[in-house]
Parts: sequence; C-alpha cells; structure tokens
Amino acid sequence: MKKGKFIGIGVGPGEPDLLTVKAIKALNDVDVICAPKSKESKPSLALSIVQNILDDRKSEYEIIEPLFPMIEDENALQEYWNHAAERISEKLDIGRDVAFITLGDPTVYSTFSYVFSRIRELDYETLIIPGITSFTGCAASAKIPLAEKDEIMVIVPKVDERLGQILEHGDTFVIMKTSRHSETLAEMINKDKRDKEVISVQNCSMEDETIFKGFSNNKKYLSTTIVKFKDEK
Amino acid sequence: MKKGKFIGIGVGPGEPDLLTVKAIKALNDVDVICAPKSKESKPSLALSIVQNILDDRKSEYEIIEPLFPMIEDENALQEYWNHAAERISEKLDIGRDVAFITLGDPTVYSTFSYVFSRIRELDYETLIIPGITSFTGCAASAKIPLAEKDEIMVIVPKVDERLGQILEHGDTFVIMKTSRHSETLAEMINKDKRDKEVISVQNCSMEDETIFKGFSNNKKYLSTTIVKFKDEK
Repeated sequence: MKKGKFIGIGVGPGEPDLLTVKAIKALNDVDVICAPKSKESKPSLALSIVQNILDDRKSEYEIIEPLFPMIEDENALQEYWNHAAERISEKLDIGRDVAFITLGDPTVYSTFSYVFSRIRELDYETLIIPGITSFTGCAASAKIPLAEKDEIMVIVPKVDERLGQILEHGDTFVIMKTSRHSETLAEMINKDKRDKEVISVQNCSMEDETIFKGFSNNKKYLSTTIVKFKDEK
Repeated sequence: MKKGKFIGIGVGPGEPDLLTVKAIKALNDVDVICAPKSKESKPSLALSIVQNILDDRKSEYEIIEPLFPMIEDENALQEYWNHAAERISEKLDIGRDVAFITLGDPTVYSTFSYVFSRIRELDYETLIIPGITSFTGCAASAKIPLAEKDEIMVIVPKVDERLGQILEHGDTFVIMKTSRHSETLAEMINKDKRDKEVISVQNCSMEDETIFKGFSNNKKYLSTTIVKFKDEK
C-alpha cells in the first residue's frame, strides 16, 4: 500500500485571509489534520484559523490534536514529540495524508520541526508549505519596513545576554514573545546609543490586534517588538 | 472626491500558489497594478507571478511599470522613486486604488518601502499585505528548520565585513543574493570553527528551482544561502 504524505502547513499569524492558496488546497485535500495544542482544555489557535476552510470541505477528514505542553523538561518534551510522530505515522502507514498545521511558518520557531525530523527519518514523502511569519505580519500591520538596502535583520526568540552581545552588529531586531521580559528588553535596547524606533504588536493580524510605540507590558503571549536602529550616515 | 488607497502586496518567492488569499482579493479589486521593472526590456517577475490572476479578472484594470534600475547612485535612485511615487499619486488623486506588487514581502528588502514612505507622507490611505519571504520559501523547499528553540536567526543582504563581525553571535544565517560573492562567503563561513550545515537555493519555488549543499557558484540573481551552525551542547 502506498504510504501517505506528511505536509507541514504554515497558517500565518492569525487572519484567515493570510493563508496561501497552496495551504488552502492542501487543507481541502488531506485526510488528516494534525493540530497540536498546548493544553487539553485550550483550543488550538492554528485550528481556529483554518476552521472556516474545514467547515466548507465536501470530503470527510479527521482531526488529531496531540498535546505539546509548554514545559522546559527536554526529556518529557521528547516523549510528547515521539508520541505525536507515532500517531501521525500510524495514519501515514495506512495511506492517509496528514497535514500538520502551525502558526506562522513551519520552519521558524515551530514545534513542527521536532515532529518533522522524526517523520523524515522514517522515509515518508514530505512537503513543507511556507506561511506568513509573525514578524512580517507585524511589520505590515505597523506599516514599517523591516529591512532596507544593506541592513542586517536579526530575529531573537529570547531576551538574554546573547541579545545584548549581538545588538551592536545588527540594524533591525525582531524580538519575539517579549511581554514577559519587557523591562529587561527596554533596558538592553536603551543602553544602545544609536537613534531608534521601537514598535510592539500584540496579537498580530487578529481581531484584537494592538500596535503601539515602545515596549509591550501586557502579559499576552503573542507579542512581538521591532527595534529599528537608525543609520548614522 | 475620495482618494484612492495605496496597497503594497507581497507576491511571495515565485510559485503563484504561494500568494495569500488577501493578496488575490486585492489584485482582483484594485484599479491599477504598479509593477516596477529593473530594465525597460525585462518583464517584471512580480507581474509574471500574478499574471494568471489578472488574466482571469472580469473588471478592467491598468498596469503601470515604473523603472527602478539596479544602480548605486543614490541621487539618481531618488529621482526614480520620486517619479514612481508621482505616477502612483496621480492615480490615487482621481480615486483609483493602486497595488504595488513586490517579490517576497513588501517590508523585507523591497523597493516598495522607498515609494511607500513618499506616498505615506502625502496622507493617502495605505495597506500592506505581507508575502512569503524568499528565505522561508527556501527553507520550505530545502526542508530544513531555519530556527528552533533559543536560536538567533540573522538575515544578511550583503557579504561584507559586517557579516564577519556578527557571525559568532548567531545560529542561523540567511545570506541573500549570494552568487556573486560566493567565494568570499565560503571563506568567511569556513573560518568559523563550529559544525555547520550549508544549503543554497536558486530560483526558490520556481520551475527551475535548484537546491544543493554548499555555496552557490552560479551567477543567477535569485540565490540564497542558509548556514546553520550546530549547537555544541
């Protein structure tokens, strides 16, 4: 029996119209949608973004929702990823195509990559469909260019001493999930003597999107800060 | 008379199915498509990506193709951008919506930003529709994660000494338009003692897409090199 194909789909930052045509075609075609969730009680955000597409489907499909809790314990996490990969490969083995949906893009800070590496080792056919990243979504909402000409752009997922070290070498910094560390971030950025523009976006492209100058101080999970250092030329 | 809206549209890396639904809706709706070209004799790549959508349109539309030559002279460039902004604002003034189409995303190394800043100063209504960037498109094609966990990702548009300086502070480097400087790049990357994976993608997501290990040595314009340094942990 021909085995199924494993497809990673980036569903973009939140607005359903920011899905690509390629993503929509795949979502209408696959047998199984895999939508990881961080808590049993919490619906998957990625799933809610594609819900309208699934509701309009004529053909039947199945949803699996493996649990990927937000924990630090590497061994425990491996167990969750292994378990998800097993559930997916069971479907692939009986010839079903499985789409793993992920917020933003599958190759940028996505748990997709951990499951993908396991599935890929098992020699299934695979496909990755890129999605709009949160940071280009944020820049579009805030109407600011992220990078121009020779500017170096740096994407940082964590506020720590490595950010402090790289700061002087880049021009635009996108700092993700900033709200929990906004004071440390503000201190670090303000230490840099260059002129700067700081813009934060919360819940990019969603109905409750907020854009403001300066740093985020709201504990919402999906917030991103863009820092643009101005050229001295 | 109500003035028109100026819309920046990212058309993605090349494959027409990588356009978003939002981009397609806008392309079906606007009165004027602005597709910059680098030479009078050379058709616009962004325009060729959306040609099928335009061919299927029921309503009439107009195409303007301002010239943005690939020159270094800043003053001459300013003239071209000013001229493009004037042509666009003439259309906006008579109530026509204008969509400026751009390869990849409008906020990432796009000439869109120079025209946008001019149009924005004139107080027209504006909208930016993000697009799939070339680097997420490349990572999807190459089936490699760009960044995971706490990894810092750096996007570099030019191979020069600034790349050498930032190198030790990042984990993943995306170096754009590499083919003309691939020897210098290889030298710089190989000097770094960390284990590394190097993948280059030419003409990402297009029919003649090529993916290979190592550095690009073909003079094609649209090539991108991804360097992933491996964690020593």
